[in-house]
Amino acid sequence: MDNSPARGTRDLLPATVAGRDHVLARITEVYHRFGYQRIETPALEDIGRLTGGQGGENEKLIYRVLRRGLDETVAADTPVADLVDLGLRYDLTVPLTRFYGNNQASLPQPFRSLQFGPVWRAERPQKGRYRQFYQCDIDMLGEESVLAEVELIEATTEALAAAGLDGTTVRVSDRRFLSALAQGAGLPEDAWTGLFITLDKLDKIGWAGVRAELPARGLDTAQIDRLQDSITSLQGIDPATLGDQLAEAVPGLADEVVADLAATADALRALAGHRALSWEFDPTLVRGMGYYTGQVFEVVHPSSAGSVAGGGRYDRLIGRSLGRDVPACGFSIGFERIVDLLDSAPREPAVAVLYEANVPLPTVTGTARELRAQGRRVSPIRRRGKVGAQLGRLADWGFTSVVHLRAEQSDAPEERPLTGK
Amino acid sequence: MDNSPARGTRDLLPATVAGRDHVLARITEVYHRFGYQRIETPALEDIGRLTGGQGGENEKLIYRVLRRGLDETVAADTPVADLVDLGLRYDLTVPLTRFYGNNQASLPQPFRSLQFGPVWRAERPQKGRYRQFYQCDIDMLGEESVLAEVELIEATTEALAAAGLDGTTVRVSDRRFLSALAQGAGLPEDAWTGLFITLDKLDKIGWAGVRAELPARGLDTAQIDRLQDSITSLQGIDPATLGDQLAEAVPGLADEVVADLAATADALRALAGHRALSWEFDPTLVRGMGYYTGQVFEVVHPSSAGSVAGGGRYDRLIGRSLGRDVPACGFSIGFERIVDLLDSAPREPAVAVLYEANVPLPTVTGTARELRAQGRRVSPIRRRGKVGAQLGRLADWGFTSVVHLRAEQSDAPEERPLTGK
Repeated sequence: MDNSPARGTRDLLPATVAGRDHVLARITEVYHRFGYQRIETPALEDIGRLTGGQGGENEKLIYRVLRRGLDETVAADTPVADLVDLGLRYDLTVPLTRFYGNNQASLPQPFRSLQFGPVWRAERPQKGRYRQFYQCDIDMLGEESVLAEVELIEATTEALAAAGLDGTTVRVSDRRFLSALAQGAGLPEDAWTGLFITLDKLDKIGWAGVRAELPARGLDTAQIDRLQDSITSLQGIDPATLGDQLAEAVPGLADEVVADLAATADALRALAGHRALSWEFDPTLVRGMGYYTGQVFEVVHPSSAGSVAGGGRYDRLIGRSLGRDVPACGFSIGFERIVDLLDSAPREPAVAVLYEANVPLPTVTGTARELRAQGRRVSPIRRRGKVGAQLGRLADWGFTSVVHLRAEQSDAPEERPLTGK
Repeated sequence: MDNSPARGTRDLLPATVAGRDHVLARITEVYHRFGYQRIETPALEDIGRLTGGQGGENEKLIYRVLRRGLDETVAADTPVADLVDLGLRYDLTVPLTRFYGNNQASLPQPFRSLQFGPVWRAERPQKGRYRQFYQCDIDMLGEESVLAEVELIEATTEALAAAGLDGTTVRVSDRRFLSALAQGAGLPEDAWTGLFITLDKLDKIGWAGVRAELPARGLDTAQIDRLQDSITSLQGIDPATLGDQLAEAVPGLADEVVADLAATADALRALAGHRALSWEFDPTLVRGMGYYTGQVFEVVHPSSAGSVAGGGRYDRLIGRSLGRDVPACGFSIGFERIVDLLDSAPREPAVAVLYEANVPLPTVTGTARELRAQGRRVSPIRRRGKVGAQLGRLADWGFTSVVHLRAEQSDAPEERPLTGK
């Protein structure tokens, strides 16, 4: 019989779950101190909401759910879409915007949201990629100033460090900076997104690759030269003079964009005086989602090829659900990626109460109870087969000590350590 | 715009989530001490596994998921079943049996499983019933003795008490006892399930109602009289003499059933010497699921009409996945029901850093940082509108104190308590 989980999904064994819970508890503890409050939305959303366009390519990967009460046989020429009314969420942002529209009257202002939960995408199965995976998002809704950006960066880098991921670097850019660059190059607005998609690949295909794609995006060689000059002149600049250098390099950049980036730089510099923080302005940072409207950021770590967290400001997304715009900024930790990077959780001590078959049950449960009263993890297990082999298995299973109960024994049984693999 | 969640589902707001997390943490802490280890299985299972018959009526309530890559239009006379390959799980037991079949080689023996997660049933929406809800199950797989039953009862009543649900009573019966009753009444084996279904309604329809249904189940008046006599003679009996009285009242009862129930009674009596435990033998207890093979139990509480937890032994269910039987016993807490019964979680102290618009951002974030360094929950919030009204809203939102930051202020700002509704 095939007992594999559904294609592209996986079972999580106890040691794996313990490691994940450990990481999640550390992250949650930090986010709680920053005032973020966990909410939960259902896994299922109306299919129309999931296919509204804000999900980009993810909308092609939705698990669609059949309406209930359908006839057993479908009539000829029925569009598949008519059979479906719900879908499994592919991220936590679409549900968050609906949640805010549904509940904003009873939420604090600004609202600091923490979400942790599974999402589903029917991607081609590949190593380390699963069709059900967890996301961990914080979002600040209703805050128009860069307090949001600064706090999200501080909270997320602190959460990652608490989870055990030290040595991260934050990269910051701004969609409005990229737009000003595109405008400065003389590109019409409807071609900007294409330029950003190409720029986003810079770290993979290099300038040669980017330059090769840009003529098709409508740029001539002189424009491409200017663009490359502007971007390379801003790579690795000193954050202390970020505002001045941006204003100089990109003349069309609005004052408020310069002021926002300078304010973020100031606050991060102040933070860096109190704890380790590595950050840089990265003029090539795009971040995939089309809905970002302001600063965007991601967190990288030397041991991971992709980013371990990312986010940005999306001031015009909630308006689509609520009917009026609400400033918003969010940061998402790549939970599956960081649990893969981190060492497994410290092993909890666990006691096996190994009892011979003739020991009365109340003696077994009573012995276990006394040990549990000390706050310990205790599992009674029947003695079977060869003692040595069984002790070896107990160690393999994660037990750290054993108490051997025999019926003929009069004095209190001794607890002995088990040394595992 | 309608921002309601999908029909029959709900959003969980921060205070609700905090209450649920509080209850879950208490339950989990107890189950960990009893050696139960959390596992996770995917929400989606192959549809064939979900419709294998062990789910009873729940199989009619499955959310079915469309295959990926279908044509946009369905061909004539396509059976709906051909369009579906997956479904959302309706309980945690079906996935557990698959999980055990898939992973048993790397699991401890016996395996103590803890599961907590959402399940989905497309039931008719009604007050307090949702189409996505959480279950919390522990199961011991691979233990044939009543150590399993006794430990599950001890752990679950302790977990409920830790969560705040004191004053529970455990009801215990045995499917084999019910079978012996049915056999003693002269009923053929294929009619037993019908009898059990009727008996299960005794607390709702009374003996008059049960007697009215039984002729259609194949029992004549004399048989019904004997059955009622046997059952009523065993209601409220002294657990100390349970074994003897059972053997006398139901002559066809196998010795091992009597011995098992006597052993459970002994161990529970010993436990009752150490902590409050109320339990009784309930000859009318059936428990709905068809797969139980031995002792069954449920936990009731005066404030709840239905049971708050229930379970039993199911020695022949894992065999359907694994190909060989593995003894198993489980207990499921009605998580949604108990969080409704319990008071909300104690409110965590939370500080609002209320800052005037002209306070420099690094001063705001620095003040928050100092307060967080004391382990406290801190949220900077911009001063807006009338101070009194805003302080009132802060209290309503759950903040317990406020620090008011002004640009012109030279000495350290004072923290003042907020008194909420």
